[in-house]
Amino acid sequence: MRYSQLFGKTNKSAPHDADSANARLLVQAGFVRQEMAGVYAWLPLGLRALRNVEAIVRDEMNKLGAHEVLLPALQSKEHWDTTKRWDTVDVLFKVPSQTGKQYALGPTAEEVITPLVAQFVQSYKDLPLAVYQISNKYRDELRAKSGVLRGREFGMKDMYSFHLTPEDFQAFYDRTIPAYLNVYRRCGLDAKVVEASGGAFTTKHTHEFQVLTPAGEDKILTSKTGSFAQNIEISTLKAGDKNPDNGEELEVMTGVEVGNIFDLGSRFSEAFNLAVTDENGERKHLIMGCYGIGTTRLLGTIVEACNDAKGMMWPKSVAPYPVHLVSLSAKDPAEQEKVAATASALHDELTKAGFEPLWDERGASAGEKFADADLIGLPLRLVVSSKSLAQGSVEWKPRHEEEAKLVPLAEIVEHVTTFMNEPYETTSH
Amino acid sequence: MRYSQLFGKTNKSAPHDADSANARLLVQAGFVRQEMAGVYAWLPLGLRALRNVEAIVRDEMNKLGAHEVLLPALQSKEHWDTTKRWDTVDVLFKVPSQTGKQYALGPTAEEVITPLVAQFVQSYKDLPLAVYQISNKYRDELRAKSGVLRGREFGMKDMYSFHLTPEDFQAFYDRTIPAYLNVYRRCGLDAKVVEASGGAFTTKHTHEFQVLTPAGEDKILTSKTGSFAQNIEISTLKAGDKNPDNGEELEVMTGVEVGNIFDLGSRFSEAFNLAVTDENGERKHLIMGCYGIGTTRLLGTIVEACNDAKGMMWPKSVAPYPVHLVSLSAKDPAEQEKVAATASALHDELTKAGFEPLWDERGASAGEKFADADLIGLPLRLVVSSKSLAQGSVEWKPRHEEEAKLVPLAEIVEHVTTFMNEPYETTSH
Repeated sequence: MRYSQLFGKTNKSAPHDADSANARLLVQAGFVRQEMAGVYAWLPLGLRALRNVEAIVRDEMNKLGAHEVLLPALQSKEHWDTTKRWDTVDVLFKVPSQTGKQYALGPTAEEVITPLVAQFVQSYKDLPLAVYQISNKYRDELRAKSGVLRGREFGMKDMYSFHLTPEDFQAFYDRTIPAYLNVYRRCGLDAKVVEASGGAFTTKHTHEFQVLTPAGEDKILTSKTGSFAQNIEISTLKAGDKNPDNGEELEVMTGVEVGNIFDLGSRFSEAFNLAVTDENGERKHLIMGCYGIGTTRLLGTIVEACNDAKGMMWPKSVAPYPVHLVSLSAKDPAEQEKVAATASALHDELTKAGFEPLWDERGASAGEKFADADLIGLPLRLVVSSKSLAQGSVEWKPRHEEEAKLVPLAEIVEHVTTFMNEPYETTSH
Repeated sequence: MRYSQLFGKTNKSAPHDADSANARLLVQAGFVRQEMAGVYAWLPLGLRALRNVEAIVRDEMNKLGAHEVLLPALQSKEHWDTTKRWDTVDVLFKVPSQTGKQYALGPTAEEVITPLVAQFVQSYKDLPLAVYQISNKYRDELRAKSGVLRGREFGMKDMYSFHLTPEDFQAFYDRTIPAYLNVYRRCGLDAKVVEASGGAFTTKHTHEFQVLTPAGEDKILTSKTGSFAQNIEISTLKAGDKNPDNGEELEVMTGVEVGNIFDLGSRFSEAFNLAVTDENGERKHLIMGCYGIGTTRLLGTIVEACNDAKGMMWPKSVAPYPVHLVSLSAKDPAEQEKVAATASALHDELTKAGFEPLWDERGASAGEKFADADLIGLPLRLVVSSKSLAQGSVEWKPRHEEEAKLVPLAEIVEHVTTFMNEPYETTSH
C-alpha cells in the first residue's frame, strides 16, 4: 500500500480534547476519527488492526467449540420486559419507531440469544452449547471517555453458554479463562485474572481480565507475583495487607478491564422458559454463562500498553501492516530513480512473500517520514536511500529498538520472514 | 462440520407468516431466525453465506481502488440538521439519549462520510477518492416484508466517491457498472442495469441493478434482449410499446433491486463545505457519487432466484459449505462401522483439500437426510452407504441435477476439486 494513496493521514497536532493515549495516538495516526464523544469511525489502518484483533478472538472462541452467529442490535421491548430489564438497565438506548413500537438497541444480547436457543435446544443431548457473536453494542453512557475504551457504540464479542448442571457450567467457565488469556497474549498484552463484582448484569461474583496500565478506570488489589488479584470493589483487604494464602504484600494498581466472564445462573432461562428434560425425565432450566471481550476496547488497550513518546508500537499480530517501507528522496535524478525502483521492487517482493508493506513514497523529508513511521508504529521500519544502496543495503529498524542497522538488499525478504516468525515483545507499562 | 453439532437445525414446517421464498427457506433451513418483523438473527449457516457475499462485494470494490472503512451507526443530529434531512427522511430512526442529545441511526452515511472526507482531502491531488463500508443500516420501515429483502436492520455496502469535475465523476460512475455486474455474476445472478428515479435521496435519475424474479417489488419495462430497461416509475413508455432505438417490443417484468448508484452532485459537499482548490486556484465543491448494495438483500435475492420445490440451490461462491456429505445408517454393525469410518476419513480428506463438508452423521433416515440436504441446498451431495461401498464408490449428486451417479471412493477428492472449479449454473427463474 502506497502511503500517498492511503485514506486517512497522520495529523501533526493531537486532538485538543484527548484524555488518553489511545484517543490521542489513534486519531493522530489516522486510525480512527471521532464522530462524537464515544462514537468513532474506523479508517483503513484502524479497521485493519481491528479485524486482526477480531480474528484472534474468533479463533480462540472457535477452539472452545463455540458457534459464531450474528444477532440484531434492534431488540424487542417485549423481551426486555420479560426479563424486567427495560427500566433497570440505565445505559439502555430505547428507540421509538413510527409503527408505535419501541426497540432496545442492544448493549448485550441475553434477551435475543435465550429465546433463540430455546427454539433449537430441545434435549440435554444438545448440551453443552456455546454461541458467540462479534458485533457493535450500544450503551447510553452519561460520560463517554478514554477514546475507544468507553464508547457509546463499540465492538464486542459476547459469548453465551448453556448447561444442564452447575458442574458442566463450571467446567466450561474454567476452560474460558485460558482461552481469554491466549487472546490477550496473542494481542501482545499481559492480562491478570481478577475477582470482581458482576456489575449491573448479575449479583454473583465473577472474573475480570485486567491489563495494568495507568489509563484504566479500575483499581486492583494485587501482589507482585499475581497470586492475589481482586477488584477493590469487592475486596475485604486493602493496600499494605498480606495475601492470606502466602503472606505477600498487597498493593493497588490501575487496570483496564479487557474482558469479563459471568455466571448468569438460570435467571434468563427461567424468564424465557429455556429448559430441557434430563436423563431422569426431570425438566430443568438451563444454567447460562456470559463471556465478553470488548474488541474495540481491546485495541485501545493495546495502544495504552504499547506506546512511547514517539507513537504506537503494534504487536505483529495486530499491526495493520507488518513493515513500514520508507524510500528517501535523493537530489541526483539517477540516484532518485534507483531508490524508487529498488523500493518498488522490494514492495512487490515483500507483498509476494505475504508481508505487504505500507510504503511511504512521498516526497517528504526523512524527518517527517520517520516521525510518521514512529507514530503509526508498525513492527519494522525499512529505509531505502541512496546512502544505504551505496552499500547494497537497506536500513533495518524494529520499532522497539533504538538503533538501525544495515541488511544486504538481497537478504531482506529472508530477514523479514525470520523476524515475523520471532516472538516480539512490545513495551508494556 | 458435523451436522449434529451444527447450531441451528432445519424445521419441518415453514413459518406461517412467510411472505416470500427467502423468508420461508432461510428460516426453515436454519440459516436465520426472525427476531421481529424486518429484524433477523444470522445463524452459523446463514452467517457463512453472508460472509461469502460480503467477500465478493469487498473484492470488487477493492478492485475499483476504493478504501474500506467502518462508520458508526449512531450519527450526529447536527449533521442531519446541516443537510436538512433530520425531518425529511421518513425512515430515519431517531434515538434519544439520557444526555439530552438525539442521534440518528444511520440508514445511509452521507452525513458521516462527507465531513470525514473534508478533514482528509485538502488538495485536488487527493482526488478521485472512493470510500466504502459494509455495515448494518437501519430504516424505520412502516411495513417490513419479504424476509431479508426489506428489513429494519440490514447489511449494506455503501460506497461514496469524490471528484473535482463532472467528467471525472462520470468516468468512475461508469466503471462501477461492470464492477456491480461482476458482483451479481459471481453470486450466480443475472442482473439488469435499469434506469430509475433516485428515490428520497436525490432528484437526479440513476441506475438500479435488478434481478428479475416474481418476489420483487419493482416493475421494470424491458425488452427481450435487454436493450431497453427502465423502472416504470420513470418511463414515458408502457408495455406493448416499442424500444425507440430498435423497435423491440417492451414488456413489464418484476424485479428485486439489488443495487443502485446515484449522482449526488455537490449537495452534500456544499452542506459540509467539502471543497478543494483546483489547478487554476479556484475553490470548488466536490462532486459526489453514492453506490449501494444491500448485502443481506443480495443473499435473499439469491434464494429467490435459486430454489426449487425442495429447497435452496446455492451457487458455489456463496454456499456456506461446498459439500453435503451424508452417511447412511446400516443395520449390520460391521457395515455401520465401515460406513462411519469411510465418511469420517472422507470428511477429513475433503477438509484438507479445502472443501470442508457439512457431514450429516445423524442416525436419521435416508429420506430425512436427503430432504434436509435439498432444503439446505449445498452445491454437491455425496452419500456414503453400505450399498455404495459394496461397489467401492460414493453416490454423487450435484444439487441442480436429478440423477445421482457412483464415483469411485479413491477418485472423490479429485472429482470434487474439478467440480468446484467448473462454472456452475443455478436455476434462475
